[in-house]
Amino acid sequence: MNAPSPDIPFTAERQRAVVAALRNALPAHCVLYNEEDTRPYECDGLTAYRQLPMVVALPETEAQVIAVLQACRALQVPIVPRGAGTGLSGGAMPIADGIVLSTAKMNRIVAVDANARTAVVQPGVRNLAISDAAAQHGLYYAPDPSSQIACTIAGNVAENSGGVHCLKYGLTVHNVMRVRMVSIDGEIVELGGGALDAPGLDLLAVFIGSEGMLGVVTEVTVKLIPKPPVARVIMASFDDVVRGADAVASVIAAGIIPAGLEMMDRTSARMVEPFCKAGYDTDAEAILLCESDGLAEEVEEEIGRMSAVLKQSGATAIAVSQNEAERMRFWSGRKNAFPAAGRISPDYYCMDGTIPRKRLAEVLLGIAAMETKYDLRCANVFHAGDGNLHPLILFDANLPGQFHRAEQFGEEILALCVEVGGTITGEHGVGIEKIDSMCAQFTVQEVAAFIGVKRAFDTAFLLNPNKAIPTLDRCAAYGKRQTRGGLFKFVKG
Amino acid sequence: MNAPSPDIPFTAERQRAVVAALRNALPAHCVLYNEEDTRPYECDGLTAYRQLPMVVALPETEAQVIAVLQACRALQVPIVPRGAGTGLSGGAMPIADGIVLSTAKMNRIVAVDANARTAVVQPGVRNLAISDAAAQHGLYYAPDPSSQIACTIAGNVAENSGGVHCLKYGLTVHNVMRVRMVSIDGEIVELGGGALDAPGLDLLAVFIGSEGMLGVVTEVTVKLIPKPPVARVIMASFDDVVRGADAVASVIAAGIIPAGLEMMDRTSARMVEPFCKAGYDTDAEAILLCESDGLAEEVEEEIGRMSAVLKQSGATAIAVSQNEAERMRFWSGRKNAFPAAGRISPDYYCMDGTIPRKRLAEVLLGIAAMETKYDLRCANVFHAGDGNLHPLILFDANLPGQFHRAEQFGEEILALCVEVGGTITGEHGVGIEKIDSMCAQFTVQEVAAFIGVKRAFDTAFLLNPNKAIPTLDRCAAYGKRQTRGGLFKFVKG
Repeated sequence: MNAPSPDIPFTAERQRAVVAALRNALPAHCVLYNEEDTRPYECDGLTAYRQLPMVVALPETEAQVIAVLQACRALQVPIVPRGAGTGLSGGAMPIADGIVLSTAKMNRIVAVDANARTAVVQPGVRNLAISDAAAQHGLYYAPDPSSQIACTIAGNVAENSGGVHCLKYGLTVHNVMRVRMVSIDGEIVELGGGALDAPGLDLLAVFIGSEGMLGVVTEVTVKLIPKPPVARVIMASFDDVVRGADAVASVIAAGIIPAGLEMMDRTSARMVEPFCKAGYDTDAEAILLCESDGLAEEVEEEIGRMSAVLKQSGATAIAVSQNEAERMRFWSGRKNAFPAAGRISPDYYCMDGTIPRKRLAEVLLGIAAMETKYDLRCANVFHAGDGNLHPLILFDANLPGQFHRAEQFGEEILALCVEVGGTITGEHGVGIEKIDSMCAQFTVQEVAAFIGVKRAFDTAFLLNPNKAIPTLDRCAAYGKRQTRGGLFKFVKG
Repeated sequence: MNAPSPDIPFTAERQRAVVAALRNALPAHCVLYNEEDTRPYECDGLTAYRQLPMVVALPETEAQVIAVLQACRALQVPIVPRGAGTGLSGGAMPIADGIVLSTAKMNRIVAVDANARTAVVQPGVRNLAISDAAAQHGLYYAPDPSSQIACTIAGNVAENSGGVHCLKYGLTVHNVMRVRMVSIDGEIVELGGGALDAPGLDLLAVFIGSEGMLGVVTEVTVKLIPKPPVARVIMASFDDVVRGADAVASVIAAGIIPAGLEMMDRTSARMVEPFCKAGYDTDAEAILLCESDGLAEEVEEEIGRMSAVLKQSGATAIAVSQNEAERMRFWSGRKNAFPAAGRISPDYYCMDGTIPRKRLAEVLLGIAAMETKYDLRCANVFHAGDGNLHPLILFDANLPGQFHRAEQFGEEILALCVEVGGTITGEHGVGIEKIDSMCAQFTVQEVAAFIGVKRAFDTAFLLNPNKAIPTLDRCAAYGKRQTRGGLFKFVKG
């Protein structure tokens, strides 16, 4: 939520030394250092913050990853690992005197084992490419972030990515069995494996979501699951957001775990409809998408039960997808909400808070009040089933004061999330964007535990420094601004 | 697999000082130090290894836990946390100059929230007591270790316990949302919370399964799930263990995830049948128990599909439970395999390796060969669905050489597990029993990472020292005995 600290600029001499060392490690075409070549790497999906890296390294093999890390360690050069650069919290934003290590060129599917239901893939394999490769066996890889056409598995591992189906099928951490990575010392380390439980500490779970701070991924084994024979989605309209939010709670309370349970407010529906022609009810105050998948009979039964609950909760209209094309159309609006925001507003700021489901209505009313306070519009899309909000604050950075107001608006939304017992990030990570909010979410002792674990993997603090985990000094400076504690806060006895 | 190193004995003066400090922290009846009082704490379920503790502390409140830890830290006294003492790897075995901290007296169910489907419980609440308390809401707590009548949630958290239904419903780590614990510094720390993904590193996952080395649990929030309306179990006989093992693979390959999938060999069936009257086919070479749960129609469909696969895989007889009483009877034999072993053999040694499912038949044949080699019988029971083996090596410690042969037999089984790509523990933990096998499973670098994480929580190494994670010196000494690498091993590039 705060601009990154100014980085120490590098000297031409330093850059020459680093380029020379990396050219010993990599073919010449894999080392970029001219500004026109490094410019594309100046930001990730969080475009508000930009920084040119000193050098970009694009290894093609694991041996080259090792050589790059050894060279950087010898020269004490910070490394920012980067997947496809679709991240939304600035986790891959460069450091001025550091390198960007992109795993994009390592993009081979190593093996698909239909019997074991696993795929072994290199870090630069795109999320959707895994499912494409598994499709011939009737299998797929479940996590489906909106960026799944572009984002890669190493980035998914770094951010513990979710998607619209994670309520039922889980996040990356629930769908990855093994990660092979290179440590800052240039050692190959394998975490996890085939067994349900691993001896020793669960370092795979720690690694997933560690935002490139613990090592560089070189290979991932993912779980594949059978593609459900049938999937159908209900689109339900509500004339009141609070009623829509309550309907979400009622579906879950009825003992149903939908394959997806998403909500959009009217601003969002009106934003995406001209762009996607998804068939959304643009007069409704809220739209719910509620999916069921499985065997045909199971889906029919569950669609019936969900429809009944939604009607009872006050739905003013209900449509059920009649075929796969219609299902994809119903989803298209939701999945394209971010690009649609980019069409109707010069800039937008995507938030990513999580709240207990039962506080959804209250938070929505709070955000509505903030729209007036900051005089900015906000389109609300949510993974409603798991309480993960994505308010999109619309603004124009060219109009004086709007960027600053958008930032304050965003900060107030996150403070509200923490206040109702939620968290500052659902699935987009902390990156550089929310590093100060970490001081709000956690106490000094817990941040110290994070730092201790980071140190266990990277004593020199060269891997993606100043991301995701704030320093204790930073938290001390954050000091008095600290909001009330949330779910994850230390509580003094 | 090796007897623990001899501990430094304590002096009477040291004991007096520790007792005095603990009496400042606790009511007098909560501090035990006379041998007749401390004797019950000399071992856990791994009865082969015993050690009297210097003092036993039984705090009744979280504030007392804090006071105990502060006192121990000030005096540099090692602490062995203990749940119900049902653990099977010696994780709660005392240290001669240390205290045992039992959480048994903190046994209150704090809250059951039927809407949120959670229960908040104190550490000493028994596993089954949670389900009992949730039953009025039609909910239950899924992990069901065989010791669930006695074992407590803090012990389940420490060992990441599973049970016969974990193939479908997961281990403790998949069913616990939040742990409140006291660190060695006497700080209260909350890990996890209500959200699907937590910002920062996933320290909840690290804590679960950390065998009392990172903190002392004072409260746990568990997930509750709806009790399936119907559950039925198939009992299938096979005239060949390899055929039975292949049938397990075929069920999974057919896309079915049974609620439970257990296998017993003839030695096990003959061992339990006189004791449990479970109706087992004692002429079969292998028996499979294959459960389905859910809605009545789903169960009927799945039982049909599973029966077909089992018949096709060569089952010689198939029975399906016709009512809940019969289902419980079919399970009774499997659930009482360990006590049954205690009835037919003076001593038994329960192993806990995990292997890839497809290597099951091969490992069974290997174990059969070892029975001849070591001239000891072995009863094999497995969580076959998730590849978790529990060979029970039967011996008589009073007959010269048998204990030693049993140990060697066990070590060879684990070496075979690692060799086929498996692990040295499935769900019983490492404790003191398998601490040397950790050196076989992991390389020095990975053990160093474990130690680094341990240090991040417990700089002084006072919490359950010399358990679960070997020291680097220990691994160096283990040295040349190291077997070929398994799934979790560092692989040099």
